Amino acid sequence: MGTPTAKPRRFIKDLAPGEFVEEQVFLINSKDLRTSSNGSLYIHCVLRDKTGQLLARIWQATEPMFEQMPEGGFLRFKGRVENYKGSLQFIIDAMRPCDAAAVDLADFMPQTSEDIGKMFERVKEILRQIKNRHVLNLIKQFVTDEPLMQKFRKAPAAVQMHHAFIGGLLEHTRNVLELALLVIPRYPEVSLDLVLAGVFLHDIGKTEELIYETNFQYTTEGQLIGHIVQAAIWIDQKIKAVEAETGEPFPLDIKNALQHLVLAHHGSYEFGSPKLPAMPEAIALHHLDNLDAKLHIYLDRIKSDPDTANEWTEYVRGLDTKVYKKDVMGIRRERHP
Amino acid sequence: MGTPTAKPRRFIKDLAPGEFVEEQVFLINSKDLRTSSNGSLYIHCVLRDKTGQLLARIWQATEPMFEQMPEGGFLRFKGRVENYKGSLQFIIDAMRPCDAAAVDLADFMPQTSEDIGKMFERVKEILRQIKNRHVLNLIKQFVTDEPLMQKFRKAPAAVQMHHAFIGGLLEHTRNVLELALLVIPRYPEVSLDLVLAGVFLHDIGKTEELIYETNFQYTTEGQLIGHIVQAAIWIDQKIKAVEAETGEPFPLDIKNALQHLVLAHHGSYEFGSPKLPAMPEAIALHHLDNLDAKLHIYLDRIKSDPDTANEWTEYVRGLDTKVYKKDVMGIRRERHP
Amino acid sequence: MGTPTAKPRRFIKDLAPGEFVEEQVFLINSKDLRTSSNGSLYIHCVLRDKTGQLLARIWQATEPMFEQMPEGGFLRFKGRVENYKGSLQFIIDAMRPCDAAAVDLADFMPQTSEDIGKMFERVKEILRQIKNRHVLNLIKQFVTDEPLMQKFRKAPAAVQMHHAFIGGLLEHTRNVLELALLVIPRYPEVSLDLVLAGVFLHDIGKTEELIYETNFQYTTEGQLIGHIVQAAIWIDQKIKAVEAETGEPFPLDIKNALQHLVLAHHGSYEFGSPKLPAMPEAIALHHLDNLDAKLHIYLDRIKSDPDTANEWTEYVRGLDTKVYKKDVMGIRRERHP
Amino acid sequence: MGTPTAKPRRFIKDLAPGEFVEEQVFLINSKDLRTSSNGSLYIHCVLRDKTGQLLARIWQATEPMFEQMPEGGFLRFKGRVENYKGSLQFIIDAMRPCDAAAVDLADFMPQTSEDIGKMFERVKEILRQIKNRHVLNLIKQFVTDEPLMQKFRKAPAAVQMHHAFIGGLLEHTRNVLELALLVIPRYPEVSLDLVLAGVFLHDIGKTEELIYETNFQYTTEGQLIGHIVQAAIWIDQKIKAVEAETGEPFPLDIKNALQHLVLAHHGSYEFGSPKLPAMPEAIALHHLDNLDAKLHIYLDRIKSDPDTANEWTEYVRGLDTKVYKKDVMGIRRERHP
Amino acid sequence: MGTPTAKPRRFIKDLAPGEFVEEQVFLINSKDLRTSSNGSLYIHCVLRDKTGQLLARIWQATEPMFEQMPEGGFLRFKGRVENYKGSLQFIIDAMRPCDAAAVDLADFMPQTSEDIGKMFERVKEILRQIKNRHVLNLIKQFVTDEPLMQKFRKAPAAVQMHHAFIGGLLEHTRNVLELALLVIPRYPEVSLDLVLAGVFLHDIGKTEELIYETNFQYTTEGQLIGHIVQAAIWIDQKIKAVEAETGEPFPLDIKNALQHLVLAHHGSYEFGSPKLPAMPEAIALHHLDNLDAKLHIYLDRIKSDPDTANEWTEYVRGLDTKVYKKDVMGIRRERHP
Amino acid sequence: MGTPTAKPRRFIKDLAPGEFVEEQVFLINSKDLRTSSNGSLYIHCVLRDKTGQLLARIWQATEPMFEQMPEGGFLRFKGRVENYKGSLQFIIDAMRPCDAAAVDLADFMPQTSEDIGKMFERVKEILRQIKNRHVLNLIKQFVTDEPLMQKFRKAPAAVQMHHAFIGGLLEHTRNVLELALLVIPRYPEVSLDLVLAGVFLHDIGKTEELIYETNFQYTTEGQLIGHIVQAAIWIDQKIKAVEAETGEPFPLDIKNALQHLVLAHHGSYEFGSPKLPAMPEAIALHHLDNLDAKLHIYLDRIKSDPDTANEWTEYVRGLDTKVYKKDVMGIRRERHP
Repeated sequence: MGTPTAKPRRFIKDLAPGEFVEEQVFLINSKDLRTSSNGSLYIHCVLRDKTGQLLARIWQATEPMFEQMPEGGFLRFKGRVENYKGSLQFIIDAMRPCDAAAVDLADFMPQTSEDIGKMFERVKEILRQIKNRHVLNLIKQFVTDEPLMQKFRKAPAAVQMHHAFIGGLLEHTRNVLELALLVIPRYPEVSLDLVLAGVFLHDIGKTEELIYETNFQYTTEGQLIGHIVQAAIWIDQKIKAVEAETGEPFPLDIKNALQHLVLAHHGSYEFGSPKLPAMPEAIALHHLDNLDAKLHIYLDRIKSDPDTANEWTEYVRGLDTKVYKKDVMGIRRERHP
Repeated sequence: MGTPTAKPRRFIKDLAPGEFVEEQVFLINSKDLRTSSNGSLYIHCVLRDKTGQLLARIWQATEPMFEQMPEGGFLRFKGRVENYKGSLQFIIDAMRPCDAAAVDLADFMPQTSEDIGKMFERVKEILRQIKNRHVLNLIKQFVTDEPLMQKFRKAPAAVQMHHAFIGGLLEHTRNVLELALLVIPRYPEVSLDLVLAGVFLHDIGKTEELIYETNFQYTTEGQLIGHIVQAAIWIDQKIKAVEAETGEPFPLDIKNALQHLVLAHHGSYEFGSPKLPAMPEAIALHHLDNLDAKLHIYLDRIKSDPDTANEWTEYVRGLDTKVYKKDVMGIRRERHP
Repeated sequence: MGTPTAKPRRFIKDLAPGEFVEEQVFLINSKDLRTSSNGSLYIHCVLRDKTGQLLARIWQATEPMFEQMPEGGFLRFKGRVENYKGSLQFIIDAMRPCDAAAVDLADFMPQTSEDIGKMFERVKEILRQIKNRHVLNLIKQFVTDEPLMQKFRKAPAAVQMHHAFIGGLLEHTRNVLELALLVIPRYPEVSLDLVLAGVFLHDIGKTEELIYETNFQYTTEGQLIGHIVQAAIWIDQKIKAVEAETGEPFPLDIKNALQHLVLAHHGSYEFGSPKLPAMPEAIALHHLDNLDAKLHIYLDRIKSDPDTANEWTEYVRGLDTKVYKKDVMGIRRERHP
Repeated sequence: MGTPTAKPRRFIKDLAPGEFVEEQVFLINSKDLRTSSNGSLYIHCVLRDKTGQLLARIWQATEPMFEQMPEGGFLRFKGRVENYKGSLQFIIDAMRPCDAAAVDLADFMPQTSEDIGKMFERVKEILRQIKNRHVLNLIKQFVTDEPLMQKFRKAPAAVQMHHAFIGGLLEHTRNVLELALLVIPRYPEVSLDLVLAGVFLHDIGKTEELIYETNFQYTTEGQLIGHIVQAAIWIDQKIKAVEAETGEPFPLDIKNALQHLVLAHHGSYEFGSPKLPAMPEAIALHHLDNLDAKLHIYLDRIKSDPDTANEWTEYVRGLDTKVYKKDVMGIRRERHP
Repeated sequence: MGTPTAKPRRFIKDLAPGEFVEEQVFLINSKDLRTSSNGSLYIHCVLRDKTGQLLARIWQATEPMFEQMPEGGFLRFKGRVENYKGSLQFIIDAMRPCDAAAVDLADFMPQTSEDIGKMFERVKEILRQIKNRHVLNLIKQFVTDEPLMQKFRKAPAAVQMHHAFIGGLLEHTRNVLELALLVIPRYPEVSLDLVLAGVFLHDIGKTEELIYETNFQYTTEGQLIGHIVQAAIWIDQKIKAVEAETGEPFPLDIKNALQHLVLAHHGSYEFGSPKLPAMPEAIALHHLDNLDAKLHIYLDRIKSDPDTANEWTEYVRGLDTKVYKKDVMGIRRERHP
Repeated sequence: MGTPTAKPRRFIKDLAPGEFVEEQVFLINSKDLRTSSNGSLYIHCVLRDKTGQLLARIWQATEPMFEQMPEGGFLRFKGRVENYKGSLQFIIDAMRPCDAAAVDLADFMPQTSEDIGKMFERVKEILRQIKNRHVLNLIKQFVTDEPLMQKFRKAPAAVQMHHAFIGGLLEHTRNVLELALLVIPRYPEVSLDLVLAGVFLHDIGKTEELIYETNFQYTTEGQLIGHIVQAAIWIDQKIKAVEAETGEPFPLDIKNALQHLVLAHHGSYEFGSPKLPAMPEAIALHHLDNLDAKLHIYLDRIKSDPDTANEWTEYVRGLDTKVYKKDVMGIRRERHP
């Protein structure tokens, strides 16, 4: 075969019925070896890139062909796109291994639509507005922990509920920081310093709770300990580092308050918070976090719903309701001409 | 006795132990005729003005004296302020009827610390930013309903939980409108028009749900129907008025959306919402409303807690926790030097 | 083909294995274009009439054939009935459009087994027993609203739980009115007038909450506002009409009570009542409504359960239990010889 | 003193302020020895008869006087009735033992206003309508168990919630039997035999669960086992007796069904039913039982509420709401002219 | 065909891909007649023996072949084992009836790995340590009820959650008795006699609640009455037998206590206990029972999880979590070299 | 006055009516300055030592006397014990400061009845049975942290529910360790090492969560962070110390497991566990912990209930039931002759 790189990348969302595909790399999301009633085998699989998923089939398959496909890994495919029950189906004609080095992971994971570098700069810019030097010292310990920040810039904010994409944690954190900047000054008896630090730290444990190399999953640490307690532990560690650097004790009250903000941010026991908000800053963090996360869920469900004939989505478990998709005010129509 | 108006008003929060009080009008919050063990009767009562409550006693009382005191009404008192178990106690020497016309009700009900007129202007100014003419027409029906607006400017936002004072509904509504103005433009797919209208209408039924002449109580309508359904009914009525004025039908979608915003704003069935938020605007309204209401509760509990020796308030039922009062960041100290 | 009307109607429940079907119209409940492992397409669909559902297949299908089938619409079918896994399967040989005018909708929707006209007369007869003239005036406003009554006679009482058939709302309302007539006079301190009016109005909002043209679904209004609040709004509107007609104000107490009865009839917040029953009439309405609705669910599950070998139905979600079908007392056997 | 029986019985509800009371027997509900601030002792106690409670005091009391008063027992009192804070207060001048034989217990316990004998006859009359001879045999075993029936005629239906008076169990059972007679024939597929038997047996365990000699309390059996399981055990025992008498086995299906009706009649686990209703008869029993019990609670709260100035009762824990007392339809006014 | 017994038993867990199977009897767990897209029929079924389940197919099937297969019954099979999607699949070539007498049921039901006889002896040995003669007499009534004990030795402890195998009830009961023997003597104020009797009786009703001939199911009695109330009834019956034998009344306190222990052992209403633990012995029984049952569930999920590549099981409904399978301490590895 | 030490200590539980008390030190639990109806002041206070509480009064009090009494502190009292409403009352004649050095705190706090030193030795002896060297190293870090162990030996296990006395945490921990030693070896696939370590650490955070100098209260850290998360943080810190000492990394799996055991030990979200038990060791720890804690509550309620005439305690909130106190088996009588 010719040079793979000669073929421009065809993203799944751009494929059209009847199109012939060559030398395209896809992530194998799942695979199934099935037998047809006439005894022949075929492979039913789901391919994925960052723009969506594609149902694919290999007729007249063999077990070795099936074994060769790495679930969660990549292959280079050739075949034809067809229309099938209103959706696309990819009939694979051939597939061959692809050089791992040639794969740009960024092409295969859903990703924030914003610039990660700029978002991270903005987060740091906002955090520099913290006035209390103890809080600022602590934040610096996190921000200058480059291995952690690398994960922070890349992690999704959740496995599936909201901001479930590369850079999602960063985007969500940036969003809530912006909300805090706008809202908290209206309540002068609420400490903006505490809220900003709390927003930055509230989900930082997700860098450890989630795996996001080629798909999104919970880590064992995530399931045994969780991002909430993880962040409380890291605050403890970083405060020790601050004390080592400054040579003075970190104020106990501030440590307690920051750990409390993180521990209480889910707002209720049933969502895994071991403590309920007991400070104004904690309840503010809880609602600002939810405002952004929930709005993202609603808007995402509306945008991604495939059934355009229906004004309502399916029932959404986490919301305990269906979502009404109709653009009543014509506002979304204006934005997507 | 001399001319009552000659005596300047002494508010309860300004009374000092040892002070002699004359010709002062108080609201009689509650009264009790008690017998002492030696057989004599005394009256134990609680007096109130807008600045607080005062425990009072009349020794050597008689039943006619007791009958003469109107619960929820006013009398003119003379007596002496004493220190009693760390609080003040008012020993009444004499009391006599007071001319209703001479009473300024505003002196006796807790009241917003802000200017009601200015707040109302600001509310109207914000609502004028609504662009959709149908929504704007509907809002005008409410804003130009002067009897309703009189109540709207005066009603508390709740009997006791948050903004439980004259002007509280207006102050809370203004606050949430300001939050919406700041926050919603960050989510361009969320209709600011709908959110602003929803915020204005979400608690407007409290004008009918609550009594707030001389104390705060639920009305019978409030208990049988509630402010949530009341507002949905008023929207229906006002839309009919809009249609009568404009001669064109009001868009059904917008009517449905606005009624839904009001019906769903409590966010869960257990708090009396017959519908759960099914639109982005509905979930945004729910969290913005809660952010302001809950912050007010936390800050109010901290400010009003009488036990200054303890860093924690008593358990607060609605929050399911105690509130931590300590001014960890020194922010409240700065504001109240 | 010959004249369609020449063929007598064959209802699904009367079809027998081996039977040839010609010129029969069925409602297309759902359709699916599927590919077989040898690459050929077939259509898998579910047809429906008022007596039941029928699984059908078209072998060697094409996409245009699939497109031609209107989901929720009607076609005229020809084919053969076969036995398949203990149930019937319809192998379609041909299908062609059918003249909408020729379709009697009543043949395709499950329908009450009683006479709709007689039931409606009985409802009105019972309502005429209301003695209070204000309540009676209000009820008249509803009963003489012919467009509403047309829907009231036709609407189901639910999408699936109970009385989920054409005329179901009427049948259920009639049933509960009869129960009220029998039961309430035993409690002379409970107002029969209020209960009768409450029963008539409690589910009337379902005329707007549900769609029941060719299948049963929730409307957008139903999902955003709901039948409970809808009825409260209608009471408000009809009372305004009464006042316009009579020229005297409608008693506020009665309005409040009737709206409360409707709002509280689900009996708990979790089932969407924004208020809990606070009057004897409200609790009576709640239990009478449930008695009929729940009995209908139990009896319907027993009758419709296809697995005759088992004495128990499957787990029923709304009841949180399986239903025991055995006719322990031989009472149902006696009635269905 | 003179002959006690010379004095006619003065019931508490008939006492008037200023009245002198002599030779009257009251049940001592509770007693307290209190010290006044001048060091003298007084007794504060609550007296009771079937018509109500009376607060009483003995000034200048001694410990022997206090010891002499039997809590839950009877004394003969002399004293004066006074008005105290809107209620009556009884100032005791003297008290002395009273001959137990001279006390008619019926004067001291709240009691059904109906004729116990007639109600019991009516219950038996209804039960004789049961057609199935097995069910009838079983019911006979209960009805002819005279010691049990003595308790059945006397027991209250509850300690405080509903029908909490002597004969309350009988009255409630009779009520629900009448409801079943009226309602069940409208559902011909529901076995009237099973429902009648189930109604009769559903609360019969309360004869063992409650004490009702001089006050209403739970027995140890009631708290360890409960009336629900108790009734299931008795059905087992009585069926054994039927089998012994008839010499034939009792149908297992009917035994299971009857025990299920009893076990499931509370309708939900949280109210102590170990099984949820799984038969039409079980759900019918649940709602008929609740209809009568709940109506009784609402009507009783309205009638017994002492605060006539307020249209609402206090919050009622078991109903999770206040009760609206206003006689909106003038129906209760008509009955109590 | 040759003599069936000539072929040694091949258990499902020992089958290998490519293996030819002859004359093997399997239990038919479920069956399905399916049509392929080319119109031919095939049978898809699940076979079972005590070691596991096996997916099987018959290509080119006919309806009579399908009818011939008894669900829940046995056939003798011939065919070939293949690898299919990582699991085994059995392609059936022939099947014929098998002589019921030739089937050893023990080969087809999952069964305790311990010796039933020895476990039962141990149970009796422990129960003989009961010192109170009344309790001992009662236990003897159960232990000498051989028909009951036969079921007791054979019944599973549950349909699927824990100890769901023949002998499971006995094994679980023995386990909890051993725990009680170890633990209770550390609390000398807790009656070992009551706890031992309570442990023995707590699940004994499962002998009646469950069917366990060829599969595990609930009986009608189990679903209408349940093992908890069943045991309470049996205690009542056996106590009557004790009284008949000894000629003296059984102490009421002990009867109440034992019935309470059984009724309260699920520990909460939502799990079907009509009473909550009100005695130290009852709470001890609840936790000892749960300790063994829950440990069995966790260990069983770990052992039986087929996905060896994942450190976590699927979400387990009854535990509301996934189970972490990793042998962190190397303890299970040591035991299964 | 004479030498205070000349008077032997009179504990509250040993005081008798009529007794004169001199030179006795009590802890002032609470105090109240009250006015009598004749205008004189008196002090109503509650005194406490480790054996109980004593209601006391000072007649003819003054404000300076009231100010002189340190709440939570000690004074030396003189006065007379009287009988008052069935309980004792102490009429104070005089009081004077007491030398703090002369107070033995152990006399004033409820305390374990066992030897703290011996219990601690036993805890260490059991922990030495841990075989895994990593776990052992970690435990050593805790056991050799003498400031922490001082608190560990002294802290109560709770503010009021169970083991609410000095040494209670140690006693409860020792108890659960003993249970684990007895029970866990019966389940060879459950790691005894993990369970023992988990038991030792599960409540160790209570040393920081509770104050127990002169009364039992939650600390601010306890309320903001809680003992569950605190212990997880300490495990993190101590593991860092182990790594520093050993120079090798601590196994991540073991760290995760131990933190999970601590985080999940409350067993449900509503009791503040941020994670549910996901390992066999975690569920075992949960039930062993509860077995000891709950048994202690039941036995303690029985022993401490003052109302000996009643077989039942009052309703116990945490148990959702009353406790049955009767010594049915005569077992407690035997132990307390």
